[in-house]
Amino acid sequence: MKSGLARSHLRIEAVEPQIDCGRYLTKAIVGDRVEVTADIFRDGPDLLMAVLRHKGPGDPRWSETRLVHVENDRWYGSFRPTELGIHSFTIEAWTDHFGSWRRDLMKRVEAGQDVTLELEGGARLIEARLPSLSKSEAKVLAHAVTVLRADPAPSDDADDPRLAPLLDELVIELMNSHSDRTGSTTLRPELEVTVDRERARSGAWYEFFPRSTGTPKKHGTFKTAAKALPRIAEMGFDIVYLPPIHPIGSTFRKGANNSLDANPSDVGSPWAIGSKDGGHDALHPELGTMADFDNFVKQADRLGIEVALDFAIQCSPDHPWVTEHPEWFNHRPDGSIRYAENPPKKYQDIYPINFDNDGAAALWLELKRVLEHWISHGVKIFRVDNPHTKSFAFWEWVINGLKTTHPELIFLAEAFTRPKVMKALAKLGFSQSYTYFTWRNEKWEIVEYLDELSTGDMPKYFRPNFFVNTPDILHEYLQVGGPPAFKIRLVLASMLCPTYGVYSGYELLENTPISHGSEEYLHSEKFELKPRDYSVQGSLAPYITKVNEIRRKHPALSQLTNLRWHDVDKDNLIAFSKSSSEGEAILVVVNLNPFNWEEGTISVDRDALGVDLARPLEMHELITDATYTWHGDQAYVRLDPAEPAHIFEVRG
Amino acid sequence: MKSGLARSHLRIEAVEPQIDCGRYLTKAIVGDRVEVTADIFRDGPDLLMAVLRHKGPGDPRWSETRLVHVENDRWYGSFRPTELGIHSFTIEAWTDHFGSWRRDLMKRVEAGQDVTLELEGGARLIEARLPSLSKSEAKVLAHAVTVLRADPAPSDDADDPRLAPLLDELVIELMNSHSDRTGSTTLRPELEVTVDRERARSGAWYEFFPRSTGTPKKHGTFKTAAKALPRIAEMGFDIVYLPPIHPIGSTFRKGANNSLDANPSDVGSPWAIGSKDGGHDALHPELGTMADFDNFVKQADRLGIEVALDFAIQCSPDHPWVTEHPEWFNHRPDGSIRYAENPPKKYQDIYPINFDNDGAAALWLELKRVLEHWISHGVKIFRVDNPHTKSFAFWEWVINGLKTTHPELIFLAEAFTRPKVMKALAKLGFSQSYTYFTWRNEKWEIVEYLDELSTGDMPKYFRPNFFVNTPDILHEYLQVGGPPAFKIRLVLASMLCPTYGVYSGYELLENTPISHGSEEYLHSEKFELKPRDYSVQGSLAPYITKVNEIRRKHPALSQLTNLRWHDVDKDNLIAFSKSSSEGEAILVVVNLNPFNWEEGTISVDRDALGVDLARPLEMHELITDATYTWHGDQAYVRLDPAEPAHIFEVRG
Repeated sequence: MKSGLARSHLRIEAVEPQIDCGRYLTKAIVGDRVEVTADIFRDGPDLLMAVLRHKGPGDPRWSETRLVHVENDRWYGSFRPTELGIHSFTIEAWTDHFGSWRRDLMKRVEAGQDVTLELEGGARLIEARLPSLSKSEAKVLAHAVTVLRADPAPSDDADDPRLAPLLDELVIELMNSHSDRTGSTTLRPELEVTVDRERARSGAWYEFFPRSTGTPKKHGTFKTAAKALPRIAEMGFDIVYLPPIHPIGSTFRKGANNSLDANPSDVGSPWAIGSKDGGHDALHPELGTMADFDNFVKQADRLGIEVALDFAIQCSPDHPWVTEHPEWFNHRPDGSIRYAENPPKKYQDIYPINFDNDGAAALWLELKRVLEHWISHGVKIFRVDNPHTKSFAFWEWVINGLKTTHPELIFLAEAFTRPKVMKALAKLGFSQSYTYFTWRNEKWEIVEYLDELSTGDMPKYFRPNFFVNTPDILHEYLQVGGPPAFKIRLVLASMLCPTYGVYSGYELLENTPISHGSEEYLHSEKFELKPRDYSVQGSLAPYITKVNEIRRKHPALSQLTNLRWHDVDKDNLIAFSKSSSEGEAILVVVNLNPFNWEEGTISVDRDALGVDLARPLEMHELITDATYTWHGDQAYVRLDPAEPAHIFEVRG
Repeated sequence: MKSGLARSHLRIEAVEPQIDCGRYLTKAIVGDRVEVTADIFRDGPDLLMAVLRHKGPGDPRWSETRLVHVENDRWYGSFRPTELGIHSFTIEAWTDHFGSWRRDLMKRVEAGQDVTLELEGGARLIEARLPSLSKSEAKVLAHAVTVLRADPAPSDDADDPRLAPLLDELVIELMNSHSDRTGSTTLRPELEVTVDRERARSGAWYEFFPRSTGTPKKHGTFKTAAKALPRIAEMGFDIVYLPPIHPIGSTFRKGANNSLDANPSDVGSPWAIGSKDGGHDALHPELGTMADFDNFVKQADRLGIEVALDFAIQCSPDHPWVTEHPEWFNHRPDGSIRYAENPPKKYQDIYPINFDNDGAAALWLELKRVLEHWISHGVKIFRVDNPHTKSFAFWEWVINGLKTTHPELIFLAEAFTRPKVMKALAKLGFSQSYTYFTWRNEKWEIVEYLDELSTGDMPKYFRPNFFVNTPDILHEYLQVGGPPAFKIRLVLASMLCPTYGVYSGYELLENTPISHGSEEYLHSEKFELKPRDYSVQGSLAPYITKVNEIRRKHPALSQLTNLRWHDVDKDNLIAFSKSSSEGEAILVVVNLNPFNWEEGTISVDRDALGVDLARPLEMHELITDATYTWHGDQAYVRLDPAEPAHIFEVRG
């Protein structure tokens, strides 16, 4: 008795896509088809009709397409959003009286029954629709009524002329398109899809610290950083992500290797945001002026690169907010502001924000203003630092609020926390999310994790971004595996995931941890300038360039739900493919063992590749440009650590 | 932004049990524990507390139990309904400030930090709760505050006396039970469970026609039918289900074997309801008076048997409603009332009802009155004929309406139709449902179907009733398989399903179809009197008696979700078990081949049986009373068609 649906003969159930009973928006990419399915049925024997109604953010009214029955009361329809923003859809279903009448009449005719009375029933159904038709349409149907009411065939052998309208496609289509919807049922509330641009789903990220683009003794600037952009563009990256570029506090500043006592020359952590020079809307003076930043963004844009900024809602003790808005912080019993802690660890250089303070309304508006400030400077992508330690409600409010006017925005959640919390952030509005990828190195755990990400509910709202390393995460696999490990992880990230990222230094195979068992870099760039010579021998840059080139040429790699595994008889060999609806198929085979060659046999799933089961496969290896011919469904592969991966373009 | 939940730090998601986002009631049995689970988590590092709130139909207010964290942000709680009717539950969750403070403080203490300021923070948390406590409780906590504010230990080596309250169970429990719920989140709307009596889930049904309890020439009556009850009771049945007992129409009455031209002596189909003698609230005169019916019900009651009536919403052309309420029926274009059809088939003896007619309100009330009439005569179980051809909305209204005042009612849906329609009827309120069981005869299809019924969402709302035969369904398996087939299907139905049924004649192995390829009985009892001699040699009655006795003695068999399969290496051998939480375990092995012996090896799943993995199993065969000892996990079994099933009580 809870829903209006209950009073109807019709049920609309299990509508997809939706998550958590429609509580959250699902996600889609502009230009991609949104496929809608639902269980729709009614009591009794009558047929039904159903339509999908869709409305884009700029549409004044609903547009409508007919749903088709697939099987077992499951119906299908789709729409292709051409506009960014929030799209709504719903379903309306009603009893198809004309279709039911027609179906039954055909059966009666086949059984040789006298149908005179039934034809009159049909004539009345048609007559009732005449007022809703145009003049020419009405003429067609009025004629049909006349035929239905005509005299029967003179003999039993002849075809009954009165049946002609039942087979007349025009009559059927007119009756369908003007079907009587009395007693129709509409799915309420409607469901919503947030439609993002392609970059929300796919892209290659490159993280670097602008301050490290100077010399060992000279702080980098936006000007020197701009000079690094061509190198990054040549490698094929789509996005450069910059750690915070704001003034850095000096109180309790951390020194090299996270030491508590900094030297006067120490540059401090960019995440200790705020000083007398300003807060989140200001620039660190040593990086340059706002004009320099604007030029940096313009230079990136010319190279086809977007700039992503870090959004870290926390303050150094020197942040202007500390004095202007002490109420925005947590306080200890003695009245002092509470610094960040993860007991027993203390982070005296950072003050976290209290999102429920007495001035919360002003705080939320100020944070939104900060984002709008950077948006006004051309930034459309924000990598949000530790969003799980902020307020769920704030994220939902600020992301969906900003996207109303700026639907092109992309928010990446840097939350390495419990699975349900990470999922919640994605549901609440984050466009992309960091993942557990760095900690998934064995075949079984890669398969298990990618299955979770690419099937079931998650692809509806959670878009993974596979970073191979970050300033915080140098995985042991890279520490011990040498150059092969770097290639392996790069191929896995870039081929498995439509969006992946590299933190600078990866191409130089940097892999020294601060201590055994730690994932922190020695001389972490978080606390020091780290200018690098990218022209050294043995750089991974050419390999990265090749991989990004393959990604750009093959749209199948910008999708996730098309991922399919191919069985290999060895634990250290993994094989997977991605195919596009245009018939393109990429098959990747990776040796997960960075220390030794591995050989094995792949059982090729030709269905997954969409290729002919009988013909030989022409396998074009895209890294080496070699071509192999595979016969049958079993293929022998041997991969050495030096070339630990094959990326095949499959031609069936 | 759609829900009040959004403003909170807390999320309550994926709450079980619920179906279709809470749109429908889930089902439970009185006295059984309702287990509630949910994902509950918050942003940030703080701990949370959560309670399950539960209210029975007669409860003036909510009762509350604390939820416990299981793993991965999944929480668990339960309630045990002691009253029939609709129970509501919801979840409230809030930040556990005291617990978070305590957790962090312990870590600080372990790290040897000065915690004086933090202790003051805790003292203030406790002080804030004092006003909500009783005098004696407040005294305990006031003391704790004093201790927290005392002087620290004189030396670093001694235990800090100020920490005592953190380890004081009474202090912790008082703070927990009076936890500050400011900013709490409550799941809304609450979820509902309809709590039925045990018979809604488990029972053995016996269907028979009272009119066949006379002699070949003499119409049976309630008096002769009452004499059949001891025989039925002795076989161990719990419910007798009677086809319609109302006056039978004579217009277009069907003769023997469904012939269109009946003789004057033909008794007609009980489903052609209504004559000059009355309609759905009247009795067929030849069966006796209302007093006779009442006596029949009383006699059944004395024998521990319940009477279930058929509720078939359709009329013979002679039903009083046809003249009193012609608006309740469908009309053809010539104004005549439309008889039942499934084109091209015609059922001129039956008028279906139109649930949306102009007098629908009066019709719905009249149908409800009919049910109330029989309820007032002691009937608490209705087997509803073809509910899927009636109105979904009507069923939801009438079943839930009647159960408000008569929560003991049980409605069995006789819908053999598409899966989603059958599921919808169960969701809308039917207590039990007929199933596809009769058409699932091979091992793989039995396993597949039972898996669907016993796992996932279905057990939350759909309770199967496995009839081995009905007056409409004599499956080919029984037609050709002889007595072994009858035993096989009986054991499968009664052991797989908590509720199962037999239509009389099954014990006499009746298996002659009206024609080859038909599932209709020759000389179907639907159109003829069919008195039987139940004392003949070779009756299955003793076997049925034994099976029902086993069912009554072993409560594990009254459940469905405890079903587990045990692998057998032969397609014609099936093995399954059911265990109870009291440690009882029944293992059933059936030879599905009625023509030949089969032998094979069972891989015993000892986990499923809840028995020690190492010790031998004492297998007490309950049909033959033999005992076997099984060693290890592999057991050889051979079953002959004469004794095609083992029902073991397992003693580990």
